[in-house]
Amino acid sequence: MLMKQVIVVNESLKLPRGKLAAQVAHASVGAFLETDQAIRQTWIESGMAKVVLKVETEADLLRLYELAQRQHLPALLVEDAGQTVVPAGTVTCLGLGPASETEIDQLTGDLKLLR
Amino acid sequence: MLMKQVIVVNESLKLPRGKLAAQVAHASVGAFLETDQAIRQTWIESGMAKVVLKVETEADLLRLYELAQRQHLPALLVEDAGQTVVPAGTVTCLGLGPASETEIDQLTGDLKLLR
Repeated sequence: MLMKQVIVVNESLKLPRGKLAAQVAHASVGAFLETDQAIRQTWIESGMAKVVLKVETEADLLRLYELAQRQHLPALLVEDAGQTVVPAGTVTCLGLGPASETEIDQLTGDLKLLR
Repeated sequence: MLMKQVIVVNESLKLPRGKLAAQVAHASVGAFLETDQAIRQTWIESGMAKVVLKVETEADLLRLYELAQRQHLPALLVEDAGQTVVPAGTVTCLGLGPASETEIDQLTGDLKLLR
């Protein structure tokens, strides 16, 4: 089965590049750690496919997170500690999966790539 | 012991934000998977500290990678598959650790934060 991970970014924050990259990495490792061992292994062996998408509001991220939980998909919301760029508690991104491409696309198939 | 992970970006490529974030996440998960279980666990429990730094040339990244290997630090070089933004085989970034802050800083303490 084709596995992938998606990280969805709250693009309303317009995070600077380094900050954004760190938050996305945090979501990626964090969601990975929420995933069952067998699925992790399949994903690793197939090259750890990951895609970075965007939404325009924090509310969109929270809605996706709820949907993911309802479908028992591994998911991790990243809140910034807020020492530098954004206020503490700001939700910067959401890691989803790895999980089957079909399940991930059901939730995120409409979202745009972050360029 | 204080653990951290560093991801060093080849900033000469000026990767677009989404591409950069995906490559950094790849380095982060990949270097994590190179790390011993006990160190992983300590790092996870202490909040998975990670910092994104930059160098200006691919040669700098390769040099860091060699130094890391000589010191038996977990390290992963990320090469882009090259389907979109950069030529195949381009080295985009390097994941280091998690490892003790002291060891990581010995290698990367002089590098600048990626903003």
